[in-house]
Amino acid sequence: MSGTWGSKIKLSIFGESHGAGIGIVIDGIKPGFKIDKDYIMYQMKRRAPGDGKFSTTRKENDEFEIMSGIFNGRTTGTPICAVIRNENTKSKDYEKTKNLMRPGHADYTGYIKYEGFNDYRGGGHFSGRLTAPIVFVGALCRKILYDKNIVIGSHIKSIKDVNDRSFDISDDSLNVKKVEGLSKQEFPVLDSSVREKMQNTILNAKKDGDSVGGIVEAAVVNLPAGIGDPFFDSIESKLSHILFSIPAVKGVEFGAGFDITRMLGSEANDEYYMTKDKSVSTYTNNNGGILGGISNGMPLIFKVAIKPTPSIAKVQRTVDIDKKENESIEIKGRHDPCIVVRALPVIESAAAIAIMDLL
Amino acid sequence: MSGTWGSKIKLSIFGESHGAGIGIVIDGIKPGFKIDKDYIMYQMKRRAPGDGKFSTTRKENDEFEIMSGIFNGRTTGTPICAVIRNENTKSKDYEKTKNLMRPGHADYTGYIKYEGFNDYRGGGHFSGRLTAPIVFVGALCRKILYDKNIVIGSHIKSIKDVNDRSFDISDDSLNVKKVEGLSKQEFPVLDSSVREKMQNTILNAKKDGDSVGGIVEAAVVNLPAGIGDPFFDSIESKLSHILFSIPAVKGVEFGAGFDITRMLGSEANDEYYMTKDKSVSTYTNNNGGILGGISNGMPLIFKVAIKPTPSIAKVQRTVDIDKKENESIEIKGRHDPCIVVRALPVIESAAAIAIMDLL
Amino acid sequence: MSGTWGSKIKLSIFGESHGAGIGIVIDGIKPGFKIDKDYIMYQMKRRAPGDGKFSTTRKENDEFEIMSGIFNGRTTGTPICAVIRNENTKSKDYEKTKNLMRPGHADYTGYIKYEGFNDYRGGGHFSGRLTAPIVFVGALCRKILYDKNIVIGSHIKSIKDVNDRSFDISDDSLNVKKVEGLSKQEFPVLDSSVREKMQNTILNAKKDGDSVGGIVEAAVVNLPAGIGDPFFDSIESKLSHILFSIPAVKGVEFGAGFDITRMLGSEANDEYYMTKDKSVSTYTNNNGGILGGISNGMPLIFKVAIKPTPSIAKVQRTVDIDKKENESIEIKGRHDPCIVVRALPVIESAAAIAIMDLL
Amino acid sequence: MSGTWGSKIKLSIFGESHGAGIGIVIDGIKPGFKIDKDYIMYQMKRRAPGDGKFSTTRKENDEFEIMSGIFNGRTTGTPICAVIRNENTKSKDYEKTKNLMRPGHADYTGYIKYEGFNDYRGGGHFSGRLTAPIVFVGALCRKILYDKNIVIGSHIKSIKDVNDRSFDISDDSLNVKKVEGLSKQEFPVLDSSVREKMQNTILNAKKDGDSVGGIVEAAVVNLPAGIGDPFFDSIESKLSHILFSIPAVKGVEFGAGFDITRMLGSEANDEYYMTKDKSVSTYTNNNGGILGGISNGMPLIFKVAIKPTPSIAKVQRTVDIDKKENESIEIKGRHDPCIVVRALPVIESAAAIAIMDLL
Repeated sequence: MSGTWGSKIKLSIFGESHGAGIGIVIDGIKPGFKIDKDYIMYQMKRRAPGDGKFSTTRKENDEFEIMSGIFNGRTTGTPICAVIRNENTKSKDYEKTKNLMRPGHADYTGYIKYEGFNDYRGGGHFSGRLTAPIVFVGALCRKILYDKNIVIGSHIKSIKDVNDRSFDISDDSLNVKKVEGLSKQEFPVLDSSVREKMQNTILNAKKDGDSVGGIVEAAVVNLPAGIGDPFFDSIESKLSHILFSIPAVKGVEFGAGFDITRMLGSEANDEYYMTKDKSVSTYTNNNGGILGGISNGMPLIFKVAIKPTPSIAKVQRTVDIDKKENESIEIKGRHDPCIVVRALPVIESAAAIAIMDLL
Repeated sequence: MSGTWGSKIKLSIFGESHGAGIGIVIDGIKPGFKIDKDYIMYQMKRRAPGDGKFSTTRKENDEFEIMSGIFNGRTTGTPICAVIRNENTKSKDYEKTKNLMRPGHADYTGYIKYEGFNDYRGGGHFSGRLTAPIVFVGALCRKILYDKNIVIGSHIKSIKDVNDRSFDISDDSLNVKKVEGLSKQEFPVLDSSVREKMQNTILNAKKDGDSVGGIVEAAVVNLPAGIGDPFFDSIESKLSHILFSIPAVKGVEFGAGFDITRMLGSEANDEYYMTKDKSVSTYTNNNGGILGGISNGMPLIFKVAIKPTPSIAKVQRTVDIDKKENESIEIKGRHDPCIVVRALPVIESAAAIAIMDLL
Repeated sequence: MSGTWGSKIKLSIFGESHGAGIGIVIDGIKPGFKIDKDYIMYQMKRRAPGDGKFSTTRKENDEFEIMSGIFNGRTTGTPICAVIRNENTKSKDYEKTKNLMRPGHADYTGYIKYEGFNDYRGGGHFSGRLTAPIVFVGALCRKILYDKNIVIGSHIKSIKDVNDRSFDISDDSLNVKKVEGLSKQEFPVLDSSVREKMQNTILNAKKDGDSVGGIVEAAVVNLPAGIGDPFFDSIESKLSHILFSIPAVKGVEFGAGFDITRMLGSEANDEYYMTKDKSVSTYTNNNGGILGGISNGMPLIFKVAIKPTPSIAKVQRTVDIDKKENESIEIKGRHDPCIVVRALPVIESAAAIAIMDLL
Repeated sequence: MSGTWGSKIKLSIFGESHGAGIGIVIDGIKPGFKIDKDYIMYQMKRRAPGDGKFSTTRKENDEFEIMSGIFNGRTTGTPICAVIRNENTKSKDYEKTKNLMRPGHADYTGYIKYEGFNDYRGGGHFSGRLTAPIVFVGALCRKILYDKNIVIGSHIKSIKDVNDRSFDISDDSLNVKKVEGLSKQEFPVLDSSVREKMQNTILNAKKDGDSVGGIVEAAVVNLPAGIGDPFFDSIESKLSHILFSIPAVKGVEFGAGFDITRMLGSEANDEYYMTKDKSVSTYTNNNGGILGGISNGMPLIFKVAIKPTPSIAKVQRTVDIDKKENESIEIKGRHDPCIVVRALPVIESAAAIAIMDLL
């Protein structure tokens, strides 16, 4: 069991890629909050496949129906359920290959866990499609956080071995406007000179029937100090819990992350100073805005490793789970050569949800 | 609030560094399980400061008293509570410096969160001392897992910029005996030629009144396929949740982790084959034994980034939170120049606990 | 927040009487369980208004759509979501009276809690209609329990002051067939001679524009000994928690319940004996099959007090919440003169759900 | 598993009657709250056996040690753990009778659930002694509620068939002073003329080696409107959940409870009126201050059925669980002929805890 999450808010996610629909229930949202459907649709569109240049050309219906919890355009305070119906789901295609376990996918682990009863079509419950309801809830939460001036943004830190620069506490890339503006870029990077190289890396992989991954760096600005807990609900714990539920995420780090292990304590420690208006600030932000699991008022910074899309056109070695024989598989269809761009709104949503649960 | 964790088992942790004592309640352990006190003490000793060469020379009392849940040497099935009393706690020392926020510590975030009412002595509830109850529970869980042939071990992957090699699916470092044997090394590495260089790195930092961090790599072998869940309780989610509650952890990655983002899909995907005895295996293990949040039967591999100990002897810039003025601080006392070695049993314990909760 | 419940299974309920729809997500049901739609519809029909003789003549659409978690007619092991769409919802009617707080309803408490943003139409989220998803899940659970030979049934113990006899451990009314058979009665009583008197009591109240309540007595037979927990998840705790969420429930008692307070200890204690096949039994069942929160293998017996339907045709004194003035209200429409009969499958479902969560 | 409870606060209870000690962890209490040890001890004393006239003459040590979460006499905001050590526990006595299942006790159900590994001495984890930590936490919560002017009190509604009158909305027995004052009575009743008859009923049972039970009626005054939730966390759900974990509780009802089933809707509905200061009130309080699971600002009223103490001196029929034979048992020792008086502070505490969790 796994479909519920949260303490102060509760999520309950459901659905399979080729079932009747997917959706989510969110409980714990205060009454009276005005729903901005355009904003939700805008965020969901960022996750949608797009024009197919860097993503699949497959069309996905992401139109959501709100079943409950909204009345006269405002939250009622009771559970909100949103459903996204599945359409044009060619199920027959999957029958033939259902026993061939796609490498890098959850076909085999799902088969074992659910004793062969899982819906194998299009990845079933493991489908990346399940991130659409996350973006729905994320958009809701982001608007609520925005009213508190808490803003979340992210950029593509790397595609394969092409790197963007990182957020830097000393420049202005971390002000509200800039962070927010990132989501208006179709391919958000801090250093625009790396964009084309990143895109070419994706297109080359696509041409070869292969795929690439990358790293997303996200920032939450204006998170007040004092949010989060020590054992067991640190900001890092809450955030990583939900991030590591997102398909393809294999690493999460905060602040300088793994790089902090190569610093001396005297370099890593973020020394304090009083600002002119007598608030506490730090000279550096190696701890990513978190100490003892609790926010210190500096920007919350984290990075997420996204593995290359497991669906590739190349022939791969696998097994037939029914016949218990070695086999080869060639995955047909329109695949994402890279899901990093589409992952951005999902990661930002996860952050918004985790923060809502801690506030 | 944060002190409870878990679904199938429930932990409830409590205590401050200089209060009456620290401890933990664990509920959900099956009745009839024989308690091995020696094994528990052995694991707790690994976490204890040791002879002080690479760690603090401060003595910590780690003797635990079992208050409940054990009868005639076996678990009763009711909640187990273990208490570790604090001793020789020189509280007076802390009075003078209580308003000086130590950089890299949770002094400031704790002050804000708890509105100045937190126990500031020795880090209070944020103290690394709180990891002792985690090791107690971890030892309990490890013994239970051991009966199912599930074994956990870890080694020091790096100290600052000195690197050990990684677990390699193709060599024998991942068999039960070897993994288990790691904990018998005082300073566990896979490639013994790097040990001295690592130790010198620590000693040099110590000499300079500075500190270093590092990376721990852990392996869980013989975890059966089918454990874990997709949204929201993937193995990665559960494990990272508890790992990121451990003080000083700033990054967690599974399998190839951040490195997988630099591979092509065709390299990253772990292709399958049937073994002679008709079980499913993979040629590589870039996914660290987890797909779709669920174990696939391969070794579960993860790495944890430990930041340099924030307590250093060097003078640091900080603020006086009461006077709201800039200040400098020089932290006296016997500090750990590096806590990576002591972190190993804590990380292994966290893994054991997370797995117990998923089984 | 309140919409989620459970440990081993998780429910997430949503919906308003006059919104797009109502529904439920249930997580934690094992894969491979065959869905019996006819059985579910049969149970839902028992809860539906019926022919209107003893209930409202209002038509309610109880057709459910399964959105997820079922594949090829069997559970997949992933969250199951069922949605029931609302139809013919004449919302305009409610506009005029929305500020008049109906006595005995949740209009006022909902208004305060949700700060006036709640959906007031037809009771909104407080509507008895929300019990339909409970019956859906209950039917699922009952079938699973039935495979373990655990059977749940209930009868009308009283309507106003007309009483049926109670389950008696010494007669055969507690065998599987009899308990199960109860649900086949349209108006289930143990002593059929009281049926007509009960029905006349309802019809008289209806004629007077008034309403009546009653007591439901339920039995769970073949529940194995050893289910449930002491602090804090006793069978009584779990069961009462969910029963007291059902609208109109004002009392819950187990075994002899409040009557046990009038016995001597020597009368109340259920003495033990060994049966011929060396299993443990009791001579009496004053404790209703539960000791220390745990089942003892005897039939689990409990009673539930259902208050008279608050919707009555008589003029009642109330307030206008907007104008802050005294007012009178005459509730128009087709009301249930008594909801006890319709409550039976809901109570049985609640029991099935609570037991599923404890097994 | 069962030892944890709560959402906004989290309890974790542990201990056995004859183990090293019993205790509780409570998390989620705000920092800065001043601890009133005298008040806690006063409440714990109410639960303690007393002078033995109406209760056991057994001495119980109820001295608690606060292990954590309190600093300089105030809550720190981190988990509070209190431990009560067990003393003078004559364990040998229990060895001889451990296979004889005491009727009305949890010996048999505990034996089955914990597979014979439970601590059988003095009821082990099922002991009424476990209510001491509940009173500890309850006293903490009551003081916090008291600062919000929310006051809890209770009286003995009945002992066996001797009845006190009920709280009446129209008299002054429900004002803060009177409700609070109840706990200052050693044997709290509303109508003092019934006290002696009740006490004689207890003494007669004692003389006969028998026991009696009774009903406790409790009131919470000044609970603001808007507290609680519909599905699944109604006030009734939360409160009954914790009440039904208290040993010996067999029934819980709110407001008129089971009696409401014998009223007409027009009698049962609590009609509204505006008070002079324009607040909403009701003429009657049959719903006990709760509608739709949410408080309406009227006094919260509930009754709890306490069964006769199962420990009686009379010979009873039972089984030897080891030999699987019929046996007789004569329970030696100093028993409570009635635990209703001692149950009052426990029930009030449970109410305080449930309300704290909902506020």
